[in-house]
Amino acid sequence: MSAAGEQATPAARDAAWLWQQIRIEAERMARDEPMLASFFHASLLGHSSLASALAFLLASKLGDRDVPAMLIRQTCDAVYADNLAVVEAAAADACAHFDRDPACVDYATPLLYFKGFHAIQCYRFAHALWLAGRQGLALFLQCRIASVFDVDIHPAAQIGAGIMVDHATGVVIGETAMLGSNVSMLHGVSLGGSGVGGGRRHPQVGDGVLIAAGAKLLGPITIGTGAKIAAGSVVLADVAAHATVAGVPARVVGQSSVAPALDMDQDFSGE
Amino acid sequence: MSAAGEQATPAARDAAWLWQQIRIEAERMARDEPMLASFFHASLLGHSSLASALAFLLASKLGDRDVPAMLIRQTCDAVYADNLAVVEAAAADACAHFDRDPACVDYATPLLYFKGFHAIQCYRFAHALWLAGRQGLALFLQCRIASVFDVDIHPAAQIGAGIMVDHATGVVIGETAMLGSNVSMLHGVSLGGSGVGGGRRHPQVGDGVLIAAGAKLLGPITIGTGAKIAAGSVVLADVAAHATVAGVPARVVGQSSVAPALDMDQDFSGE
Amino acid sequence: MSAAGEQATPAARDAAWLWQQIRIEAERMARDEPMLASFFHASLLGHSSLASALAFLLASKLGDRDVPAMLIRQTCDAVYADNLAVVEAAAADACAHFDRDPACVDYATPLLYFKGFHAIQCYRFAHALWLAGRQGLALFLQCRIASVFDVDIHPAAQIGAGIMVDHATGVVIGETAMLGSNVSMLHGVSLGGSGVGGGRRHPQVGDGVLIAAGAKLLGPITIGTGAKIAAGSVVLADVAAHATVAGVPARVVGQSSVAPALDMDQDFSGE
Amino acid sequence: MSAAGEQATPAARDAAWLWQQIRIEAERMARDEPMLASFFHASLLGHSSLASALAFLLASKLGDRDVPAMLIRQTCDAVYADNLAVVEAAAADACAHFDRDPACVDYATPLLYFKGFHAIQCYRFAHALWLAGRQGLALFLQCRIASVFDVDIHPAAQIGAGIMVDHATGVVIGETAMLGSNVSMLHGVSLGGSGVGGGRRHPQVGDGVLIAAGAKLLGPITIGTGAKIAAGSVVLADVAAHATVAGVPARVVGQSSVAPALDMDQDFSGE
Amino acid sequence: MSAAGEQATPAARDAAWLWQQIRIEAERMARDEPMLASFFHASLLGHSSLASALAFLLASKLGDRDVPAMLIRQTCDAVYADNLAVVEAAAADACAHFDRDPACVDYATPLLYFKGFHAIQCYRFAHALWLAGRQGLALFLQCRIASVFDVDIHPAAQIGAGIMVDHATGVVIGETAMLGSNVSMLHGVSLGGSGVGGGRRHPQVGDGVLIAAGAKLLGPITIGTGAKIAAGSVVLADVAAHATVAGVPARVVGQSSVAPALDMDQDFSGE
Amino acid sequence: MSAAGEQATPAARDAAWLWQQIRIEAERMARDEPMLASFFHASLLGHSSLASALAFLLASKLGDRDVPAMLIRQTCDAVYADNLAVVEAAAADACAHFDRDPACVDYATPLLYFKGFHAIQCYRFAHALWLAGRQGLALFLQCRIASVFDVDIHPAAQIGAGIMVDHATGVVIGETAMLGSNVSMLHGVSLGGSGVGGGRRHPQVGDGVLIAAGAKLLGPITIGTGAKIAAGSVVLADVAAHATVAGVPARVVGQSSVAPALDMDQDFSGE
Repeated sequence: MSAAGEQATPAARDAAWLWQQIRIEAERMARDEPMLASFFHASLLGHSSLASALAFLLASKLGDRDVPAMLIRQTCDAVYADNLAVVEAAAADACAHFDRDPACVDYATPLLYFKGFHAIQCYRFAHALWLAGRQGLALFLQCRIASVFDVDIHPAAQIGAGIMVDHATGVVIGETAMLGSNVSMLHGVSLGGSGVGGGRRHPQVGDGVLIAAGAKLLGPITIGTGAKIAAGSVVLADVAAHATVAGVPARVVGQSSVAPALDMDQDFSGE
Repeated sequence: MSAAGEQATPAARDAAWLWQQIRIEAERMARDEPMLASFFHASLLGHSSLASALAFLLASKLGDRDVPAMLIRQTCDAVYADNLAVVEAAAADACAHFDRDPACVDYATPLLYFKGFHAIQCYRFAHALWLAGRQGLALFLQCRIASVFDVDIHPAAQIGAGIMVDHATGVVIGETAMLGSNVSMLHGVSLGGSGVGGGRRHPQVGDGVLIAAGAKLLGPITIGTGAKIAAGSVVLADVAAHATVAGVPARVVGQSSVAPALDMDQDFSGE
Repeated sequence: MSAAGEQATPAARDAAWLWQQIRIEAERMARDEPMLASFFHASLLGHSSLASALAFLLASKLGDRDVPAMLIRQTCDAVYADNLAVVEAAAADACAHFDRDPACVDYATPLLYFKGFHAIQCYRFAHALWLAGRQGLALFLQCRIASVFDVDIHPAAQIGAGIMVDHATGVVIGETAMLGSNVSMLHGVSLGGSGVGGGRRHPQVGDGVLIAAGAKLLGPITIGTGAKIAAGSVVLADVAAHATVAGVPARVVGQSSVAPALDMDQDFSGE
Repeated sequence: MSAAGEQATPAARDAAWLWQQIRIEAERMARDEPMLASFFHASLLGHSSLASALAFLLASKLGDRDVPAMLIRQTCDAVYADNLAVVEAAAADACAHFDRDPACVDYATPLLYFKGFHAIQCYRFAHALWLAGRQGLALFLQCRIASVFDVDIHPAAQIGAGIMVDHATGVVIGETAMLGSNVSMLHGVSLGGSGVGGGRRHPQVGDGVLIAAGAKLLGPITIGTGAKIAAGSVVLADVAAHATVAGVPARVVGQSSVAPALDMDQDFSGE
Repeated sequence: MSAAGEQATPAARDAAWLWQQIRIEAERMARDEPMLASFFHASLLGHSSLASALAFLLASKLGDRDVPAMLIRQTCDAVYADNLAVVEAAAADACAHFDRDPACVDYATPLLYFKGFHAIQCYRFAHALWLAGRQGLALFLQCRIASVFDVDIHPAAQIGAGIMVDHATGVVIGETAMLGSNVSMLHGVSLGGSGVGGGRRHPQVGDGVLIAAGAKLLGPITIGTGAKIAAGSVVLADVAAHATVAGVPARVVGQSSVAPALDMDQDFSGE
Repeated sequence: MSAAGEQATPAARDAAWLWQQIRIEAERMARDEPMLASFFHASLLGHSSLASALAFLLASKLGDRDVPAMLIRQTCDAVYADNLAVVEAAAADACAHFDRDPACVDYATPLLYFKGFHAIQCYRFAHALWLAGRQGLALFLQCRIASVFDVDIHPAAQIGAGIMVDHATGVVIGETAMLGSNVSMLHGVSLGGSGVGGGRRHPQVGDGVLIAAGAKLLGPITIGTGAKIAAGSVVLADVAAHATVAGVPARVVGQSSVAPALDMDQDFSGE
């Protein structure tokens, strides 16, 4: 089944499928490293569903003296019960890491270890609370996420599914930012505001965009589907679909592939 | 009073005024989110002054197994008692966040949640210890600040009042750096040294300068009043007052506004 | 002896020499700041060798609820006993900070306070476990290092001795990266992969290279001995020995000094 | 409703009734002492049932580095879901404290503060695990209970409902002990074994018995319904129903009241 | 001065005198055991008065996740500022340990290590809160004291100065109990109630009484000045001044010395 | 081998034999309860000797904020390396629990869970420090032992091997007490002093004595080999070898068996 599992089509890799796959992996991990057996048990094997494991994960990371882990978990359980799409988005995010990061050779690793995956799931939880009218708690969690993962995502931002935030340290995503689905970004990326006025102040990023390490996208600009933003770029203007931009400020240097967020090719020198 | 409070002139927003305003906000927050009521009480409502709340805040963040929170607080109380200007600078910093960050809609939020605000107040405390001859403890605190907030500020650096460090992750400010007042900077900014010689090795930054995300200012250069440093720039030479510079290495691309640190306009493409 | 000690030739500064020097410094520190006396005792003075102090340090930083500090220490003691070269590399790293960072005026400070030094020693420990077939534990530690120090180094990466990673926040070093000896790098540096294929995907960096703050080196490129990579550069192609490169994408802008990693001169404007 | 609530007949005070009553009390407590508002919220007001609050309570007390609180809670939730009688017994225990301890003026206080109540609920949880075949976890919890509450109850012991263990420190209840319902005992009471043989080795205690402070009941003896064991007694032989015994070794000194466990009259001098 | 200090008359050993003496002792302790130097510094040497050291001590012991140590300390500082007699009573308690316990050879040891001393000081703090109308917080602290020290003292109980509670585990002192000054008691002593009625339910104990290990005093009885209660006794009736009582139930077995609480002679066989 | 192991003669059950036996048991426990697998691994299976497991155990229990677990362990490792007899005594203590407590069905359980076993091993460690001239640290540990296990043993007391302290809460053993080998005692037992003079103030207890629950032995009395002290007794005078004493004060009530500490028969009514 494991072999079959790994060949599942993307469409078939829903939360239930993923959960079966992760359990198989975690059992092997626990056999291989007894020092971590209870960690794998508490994190994965002791749960009956992906939602339960995710709620445990988020509570472990976000709990502190001011709001104990058990309260976070209880609140997260309630959010997941009412928002199945949040768990499905998490499943798509885990698959994104497996598909796009050669150093990620199984589905359990993002759940266990990747701070980008952790930060995004914590944001999804805080975002659901924001929409449900609990802005106070959502802002508290934003602070915890920034403290624990070094990733600052405003809970009002809107983010699609199938997101990979690789390495993650220093990522900033502002209050009115909008991201489509299947976006890949690396550490040090900013989707920042510009100015002090009201209304939309942050970028809108289309599906399948790749934003390489350290790129700054500033202001209410629009990045078209499948665009590619080179590392270290500073983007101050709209980018057309499937354009590759680079530089400070960024200029168009070529045409990106069909799916740059999946290719993860950060080299733009030949385009 | 709350309406009147929010219209107070900058000059009138001293620590005493700010403290009254923050208490009003915290009482509303505690009503809105009972899960956090004791957190708001411990952080803000249980204190009789801004200095007391700040000392509690710093101790909560910096305390660890090696130096427990209560010792930090006791030391901080003593520093504040002898240095009222440190508390007034903190008040100016909180107002800077309120004035310049559209996502910050009250005065309590920087105290509660912003790691840039937290890091600067911790630096101010460590700097006062450095000046008082306790370099050993100041260096210990520098390490704690770098660990907790991902912001590395040498306690010998000199920094004015009314500073906003937004998002903050990755900021580095070196030993001989000097910053004026009312400076705004974003995450990933470095005021770095160059070379291994003695004497001044770090930048001197004038009043009201805006340093956008990820900019690197390197060596004993001087940045004039009201200059604007674009995101991702690498600045290796002096910058004139009210100049806008951008690029790697940075070149003059225009003239900044009267007060770029207040406008927070990171877009330099039209200048 | 202290004076003689500080004049020791590099070759003579092995782990044993360094340990004597550090003890002298720590005794002075404990006298100067009683609040930290037990911290200096537990970290340095209570140990009989550099290896013992390092194992204590790593365990203090990496231990958490899932793997308690005592287990980390026991595992680290065993690694050091079998790999004396790991301890000698740590000694060379501490000397690198002392030699190249003017703000570092003694040998004890990197052990006590510098997160770049801490992260590299933790990586060396995880790398030894990786080579010994304990990949599961090595990946767990990679996650802890990323969480505690904001530095993401894959345990399979290969890194020489005499390394200084200054300030460190945001550094990323990928799975197939290779670094020579006596390299200096600053915060925000990435040795990143490109694409999703197998084989070598990350840079190979020669001896004595200086990589300034925020530079991104992407893909299976080769950086020659003694090259200098300017701050904020994005490097997508090979760099010749002793070349200085800068920009997005980086181009050759001059010739570096004999030993740029020792000079730490980040200014390339005059080259 | 509060007045009506407090006059409810014992039969009517089931878990649902009790839960309503406790919420009313906790709301008043939170208003009266803001420093504890979040504690009351997390412990009581944030829950939707007595079972949920109890599971939170037990997890808060029993969780430690080896088994985190969240895992305890998850296991306890499952136990309660399958054993409604365990929660009803807890409700009866809380009522026992309210009825029999003049210093206990509401129903919330045993849940919040009484270590005897806490220890018994933890035992009930461990006992259910023991019966379900998880002896290993049950023994782990016995150790935690002994450590946290200074009460050592073997998870195989059998204990009825409506139990008050007042003050609790030093209580020991052995593996084959059996207690009926509505028993009251005080701190320092032992239901100990005698000898090293197999079979029943500990006392069997009838309904409504009062065992005063420090009494030792040793060996497979039987204590009849409504008996009263004086403080400091050492009981080595069977005690008839409604007898009062005292002394070292204990002898019959009188006749107890109809319900000594409810009267809580520790004075036997006039009997 | 140290020699002179130890010969000070009891009347002269007020809080100020004691504080000077304790600092001299703590300096010697810190020199003798570097592993504990910072502990002695944080607990004693870093403070400017006995009140400050006591507040630090109580906060260290009573602080937990629900009420952090810093909040306890702040509250305790305020209590001491308004109730100098509470600090003077603590000084008398420390002297009582020094005078009456041959294993206590200095004045610092009760503050550093004796759980009986710690529990009594925590009670004094909770009692002051009780009198000030903060019953909710006082009951919370009673629970913490019972948990941390295994000593259950109701905050409404009334207790004089110069009290020694030796070893302390299992001591219970009920809501309406009253103790005079210069009382000595050992572990396992109960001043318990009897019955469920209102009014006074607990013992009243005169000045200078010695209550030996494990004695139970039950009900609203009166123990005369200078009486001696033998170990393991169960006292159900009044005891005359300077009588020695023993047994279950206790009977008069002799006449006590002038000051049994000072003599600490637990042997009553020859009286 | 396990069957053969369990039939080993007492003489053959040294630390090496016991360690093999315990590992076999722990492997079975880890298989049976995955939630505790890492706990069993960290406590037992990850160690190469009984001494290593004991040092880990003691450090886990005694470590706190003031002296971290790793420092305790390092100190304990050094003590064990110099005092093999301390580890052999621990092995004899574990066998004593296995032999004398019917609820203890394997050798691993005392190490994992019994606070009496834990407290005695911590005392043995503190006693070795006391003899080695580190009285300051030994007294610190006495305080920790009293806090963690509710057992107060002065580090100067002298205690033989093969000791079982069952349940343990409330046990007190004074500074000049001396215990022989193969003694069994239960919770609430005191070996207390009497008076305030110098010299020997505490009991001397012969080999093989049984001291039942709550017995108080007071003053410099001598308890002969194989004597039996009934529960709740107060012993103020010497007891002859193999005598059984009971009562307050204790009187001879019979003759004990050959080895009362092994028989654990607390019933003296028929003697």
